[in-house]
Amino acid sequence: MEFTTLLEGIVARMRTAPDKGRVADYIPELASVDPDQFGIALALADGRFFAAGDADTAFSIQSVSKVFTLALALGRLGDGLWHRVGREPSGLPFNSILQLEHEKGIPRNPFINAGALVVTDAILAGHQPREVLGEILRFVRAAADDEHIHIDEAVARSETDHGHRNMALAYFLAAHGNFVNSPELTCGTYFHQCAIEMTVRQLAMAGRFLVGGPGKPNLISRDSVRRINALMLTCGHYDGSGDFAYRVGLPGKSGVGGGILVIAPGRASIAVWSPGLNQHGNSALGTLAVEHLARETGWSIFG
Amino acid sequence: MEFTTLLEGIVARMRTAPDKGRVADYIPELASVDPDQFGIALALADGRFFAAGDADTAFSIQSVSKVFTLALALGRLGDGLWHRVGREPSGLPFNSILQLEHEKGIPRNPFINAGALVVTDAILAGHQPREVLGEILRFVRAAADDEHIHIDEAVARSETDHGHRNMALAYFLAAHGNFVNSPELTCGTYFHQCAIEMTVRQLAMAGRFLVGGPGKPNLISRDSVRRINALMLTCGHYDGSGDFAYRVGLPGKSGVGGGILVIAPGRASIAVWSPGLNQHGNSALGTLAVEHLARETGWSIFG
Amino acid sequence: MEFTTLLEGIVARMRTAPDKGRVADYIPELASVDPDQFGIALALADGRFFAAGDADTAFSIQSVSKVFTLALALGRLGDGLWHRVGREPSGLPFNSILQLEHEKGIPRNPFINAGALVVTDAILAGHQPREVLGEILRFVRAAADDEHIHIDEAVARSETDHGHRNMALAYFLAAHGNFVNSPELTCGTYFHQCAIEMTVRQLAMAGRFLVGGPGKPNLISRDSVRRINALMLTCGHYDGSGDFAYRVGLPGKSGVGGGILVIAPGRASIAVWSPGLNQHGNSALGTLAVEHLARETGWSIFG
Amino acid sequence: MEFTTLLEGIVARMRTAPDKGRVADYIPELASVDPDQFGIALALADGRFFAAGDADTAFSIQSVSKVFTLALALGRLGDGLWHRVGREPSGLPFNSILQLEHEKGIPRNPFINAGALVVTDAILAGHQPREVLGEILRFVRAAADDEHIHIDEAVARSETDHGHRNMALAYFLAAHGNFVNSPELTCGTYFHQCAIEMTVRQLAMAGRFLVGGPGKPNLISRDSVRRINALMLTCGHYDGSGDFAYRVGLPGKSGVGGGILVIAPGRASIAVWSPGLNQHGNSALGTLAVEHLARETGWSIFG
Repeated sequence: MEFTTLLEGIVARMRTAPDKGRVADYIPELASVDPDQFGIALALADGRFFAAGDADTAFSIQSVSKVFTLALALGRLGDGLWHRVGREPSGLPFNSILQLEHEKGIPRNPFINAGALVVTDAILAGHQPREVLGEILRFVRAAADDEHIHIDEAVARSETDHGHRNMALAYFLAAHGNFVNSPELTCGTYFHQCAIEMTVRQLAMAGRFLVGGPGKPNLISRDSVRRINALMLTCGHYDGSGDFAYRVGLPGKSGVGGGILVIAPGRASIAVWSPGLNQHGNSALGTLAVEHLARETGWSIFG
Repeated sequence: MEFTTLLEGIVARMRTAPDKGRVADYIPELASVDPDQFGIALALADGRFFAAGDADTAFSIQSVSKVFTLALALGRLGDGLWHRVGREPSGLPFNSILQLEHEKGIPRNPFINAGALVVTDAILAGHQPREVLGEILRFVRAAADDEHIHIDEAVARSETDHGHRNMALAYFLAAHGNFVNSPELTCGTYFHQCAIEMTVRQLAMAGRFLVGGPGKPNLISRDSVRRINALMLTCGHYDGSGDFAYRVGLPGKSGVGGGILVIAPGRASIAVWSPGLNQHGNSALGTLAVEHLARETGWSIFG
Repeated sequence: MEFTTLLEGIVARMRTAPDKGRVADYIPELASVDPDQFGIALALADGRFFAAGDADTAFSIQSVSKVFTLALALGRLGDGLWHRVGREPSGLPFNSILQLEHEKGIPRNPFINAGALVVTDAILAGHQPREVLGEILRFVRAAADDEHIHIDEAVARSETDHGHRNMALAYFLAAHGNFVNSPELTCGTYFHQCAIEMTVRQLAMAGRFLVGGPGKPNLISRDSVRRINALMLTCGHYDGSGDFAYRVGLPGKSGVGGGILVIAPGRASIAVWSPGLNQHGNSALGTLAVEHLARETGWSIFG
Repeated sequence: MEFTTLLEGIVARMRTAPDKGRVADYIPELASVDPDQFGIALALADGRFFAAGDADTAFSIQSVSKVFTLALALGRLGDGLWHRVGREPSGLPFNSILQLEHEKGIPRNPFINAGALVVTDAILAGHQPREVLGEILRFVRAAADDEHIHIDEAVARSETDHGHRNMALAYFLAAHGNFVNSPELTCGTYFHQCAIEMTVRQLAMAGRFLVGGPGKPNLISRDSVRRINALMLTCGHYDGSGDFAYRVGLPGKSGVGGGILVIAPGRASIAVWSPGLNQHGNSALGTLAVEHLARETGWSIFG
């Protein structure tokens, strides 16, 4: 297969796609992003690398960061993490507080906001946010083999100013005794991790540790790789996870910045970015593009 | 790998497992099943076949039948089916009526009871239950290459007598205009499809059409194979689906009779049976056994 | 106070009211009712009686019948009834199935549909529907001192044909063991009790047993009078009960036929009817009219 | 009727009551209160006053304060308040966050915590907490005709330290745009208002403005009196409101400190206190005592 042609074809298709979705507008820094951008990158298990479109424009990775903090937390806490957060799809939007009330402060999974806050809270655990953010950045840089990845401070500040709902989730978790640090401290850390900026090139490189196989960054155990992929498949797109599994057939994690990291186990790490979101809060063109890529390559994990 | 040894080892392990779960007791026919039974069978993509334990004892496949009716419905209605039922995990028990009310009578997915009733209702669509049950049986027999598969009438009658909750779901769907036939007729058909009796040998054979690859029964398109596997992965174990994906890493569909059909795409169809259920209503030993099998074979779809 | 003038004034006001609501349309018999009708009647504790507007037109009392069956059930079962149904406002629409699932088949109160089905089921308790309907009619006729009150069979048949949601509730209650008779039998009885036809004259007369004081029909104990009035106040208008209490300040029970029975304890029984409904399913003009009446008479129970 | 004998009789009965409930233990200041205390006071509309038991021991009025802030807010904002908070019973515990999510940040009523936070936020509206707390105290002191009522600072501080759930509600309201001040500021004010200390003597005096009739403190309009009483009846005891209305038949507002203010419109203001709470968070003996009082006096508003 000629990957260059494939990616260029996808970029061309996306240019003329009828519905580019709506850019997230809850903070000015995201609302002002040009919606007509699209980039895609592919890091193959054999070491080859391909990219097309706006592959060198940095964007806010937002919830894609939850994959990296989960990897860190599993490495540090092991299965102990699962006392504080579940592994089931929630069937509800990313920021829902409903299930938390029914289930006594145990979030359904580590990829909804409440669960990701617990994961960050677990990593923070008495340390300074600065230290922990340094550790997260080191992990991402090592995964991507790129020292230039950093946090966009303006986005982080803006998240803090508009993060009332996440603060509500954090206080709710604290009220149920499922929080170690103060809501302000953990949310502050969380808002910064979400504000990490990356290009699709960097993100595809950073995803290689989840592809498995020889020569990949050996950051976590093979068991952890499988488990994170399983969680990405069942929970990575909130209440659009089942649809993504049905249409694409690969584990993925999206962010409201419009990025998606997709893993074809044993084959490739794929990053795609386009700022417009569909009704579930996942990149509209990004989803379409990886659906096309999966069909053309036959990389579905489902046969 | 020596599959005979592997399966015999699993059977031996399961004999001494500390917690065999609780046998379903909502109908006398299931409640009276001996809990100390365990069978496992493996139909490899290359045509080899292995079985161990109580592999020749027939059991009620119950919700595993939903896989076969979904395959039939997709073949007949194509994507039109998705106007009547969703593709998302529900995050709720198998027989919940909650989401139906919030979502105006569109069940979350075809594997919760409400969704399976819609699928059966769609296949029935004005035909006689007898005809449609004949069609379902022909499909299962063709898949298994076995003419001896039949319906246990005593179980079907007992389901009918105790099926108040499914009748409630059916009337609720009817109230929302998402039912073509009378609740009595569709539920009657559904109770019979759930009462199909099979051994793990027969079930493993019947699952081969979802394995893909050459030489398999070509009952549905490759796209449909992938999609059904995706739905089994995200929704096949109700509110235990995420946990099954995490621990086993393979698509599967369970039934309250204690059977589970598990697919290793491109590799094997696996059937396991043990009547005791865990808290999510899935076979306790069955889940444990396929978790062990997946770890030993490395067949996870997640890397 | 000159009640004739007051009622005529209310009738005149209602004629020019800007929003008459929407007539219930789930069965043809209700949908075809002329929305421009309005009647009001007042049976004072001292025996005087006043009426104005369309006071001699019979309408379907629908859920107002729940007051009479509750009175019958309390008389027969006493506090034992409260093992099967609660006494709390539900905060949800009249036909919701949500709380039933959370609360194991115990409806919140006897005035939501699920609760009223339990009440009718309790009265039925092995008897023939025909007998029990005779008993309900005898109670209503005795209360109203009027032998001409009867059931509209066409409405009852139509309810049966369109009663899927109530059938769903009944099967759900049966699934939780909170049903004595078959869902078909209890629902059949319930659909007939809802199809009782009355004029506002008859309904105001029939409500006198809840006014208390000397000379009223002595059908139930004073304790039961107080308790039924309390339930009407807190639960009589579904998720519009709080608003009715705030605006009118009197216990009342509405029906989708557009009738409302309102009690001013110690003072009067008030019946009002206008077929157009507001967003909570209660008569739009009826609510407005009794709000006006309560303000003019100062009959609020709240000071 | 001889009220002295009546109240003494109630005190004697309560001493031997088998179940005194459980003292609230979420803050140390409440947890350490002696559970064997019981006081009752009665301010009649004709000016007479009676008290018995521990009538001179001050307790934390907690949610009873919501009655006073609602009166203040209605006086200042009038019906505009109802754009920000509803008037329906919630059918859920006092601190539930569920309905907030379904209903876009509009709390069901002003007596659940979320609604009371909105009321306090509306009074605060840009002012300093100190000023507003002064205004609340002036209102309560004027109502009680007693300058000695004050805030227990130790309780207020402790509430602040343990108020995670209220902070969660406040941030959630802020996220929905239904908050004017910062969550910290409004919650701080709210925690102080809840920490007002009163005896049952003072509380019964302070409730007279809701009794109506000549010679009462004329702090709000008669319409507002009726409306606050209606809200107390339908929503004053959280998900135990229907039961209180059924058993007692009078408007009331409880607090987790064990106090209840009960209004017999036109007749009396009643205050009762005992620290042990029932399963709905309302004073166990307090509820029992007013049920007894209502039965003996025949003061039910329901006939």
